[in-house]
Amino acid sequence: MRILGIDPGYAIMGYGILDYNGNRFRTVDYGSIETEAHTPMPQRLNQLFDGLNEVIQKYQPEEASIEELFFNSNTTTAIKVGEARGVALLACERNGLRVSEYTPLQIKQALVGYGRAEKKQVQNMVKVILNLKEVPKPDDTADAVAAAICHAHSRNNRVIG
Amino acid sequence: MRILGIDPGYAIMGYGILDYNGNRFRTVDYGSIETEAHTPMPQRLNQLFDGLNEVIQKYQPEEASIEELFFNSNTTTAIKVGEARGVALLACERNGLRVSEYTPLQIKQALVGYGRAEKKQVQNMVKVILNLKEVPKPDDTADAVAAAICHAHSRNNRVIG
Repeated sequence: MRILGIDPGYAIMGYGILDYNGNRFRTVDYGSIETEAHTPMPQRLNQLFDGLNEVIQKYQPEEASIEELFFNSNTTTAIKVGEARGVALLACERNGLRVSEYTPLQIKQALVGYGRAEKKQVQNMVKVILNLKEVPKPDDTADAVAAAICHAHSRNNRVIG
Repeated sequence: MRILGIDPGYAIMGYGILDYNGNRFRTVDYGSIETEAHTPMPQRLNQLFDGLNEVIQKYQPEEASIEELFFNSNTTTAIKVGEARGVALLACERNGLRVSEYTPLQIKQALVGYGRAEKKQVQNMVKVILNLKEVPKPDDTADAVAAAICHAHSRNNRVIG
């Protein structure tokens, strides 16, 4: 099964494509779609939508996984990240991809076995689990790959679409 | 000039289409796109995107106007409304529509001449300005029409895309 992991942001949207068969991972690709500051938001959203469509059509994943967002304070940022997340969910839906979402706690538990793990520990486990030479960069890409690994380990636990 | 006003929400997305020429308004249409609770969010976003595309392609507005969102507390709601707003901005961008955004204060000032006006006063002014028999329902539709009126009165003040 081929999984697309997404870390949604409006400046950087990370993605990772993994094959998971017989409890073994194969890393297909990972990277990020980046948009420039000072570009009007509708254009940035369109670039993210086009970029994610391209990734989906190139690699034909069968399922998608995305982190559930939490913000403590800044609702202006929450709305803008929500806008990028909406466009990511739309790209999945329009390509017939079912999306599962996971809390940061679930992702930490799936990768490190400990819900209060540090972000760096999670990213290091991405490297170890996939037998990579380095942690994927930027952080958004590593987080997207982590979401894909979490989904492989917890499939069908929480389908939102 | 034909203006599309949008009030973005994931359960109800209000819209209004107005012609504004020589300081006179003509009401073309208004209404709302509604999605059902308990439907997965990616599907709801897709319904909103399809519905708004249909409105844009039917009426061919030349510019769009949308309210800037503020939330005092609930960031979970802010993210979901942001998701719907992102899909609305994407529909505008992909149809070549420039989007201007206005704060609630600017919309109140444009319609009532007073930034601290009550929501009901704003909605009543929509009825008066457009010479309608009743205030458009639901509230989301009246708010979308108010955003379109505000844009007609303040064009090019604040273009975001």
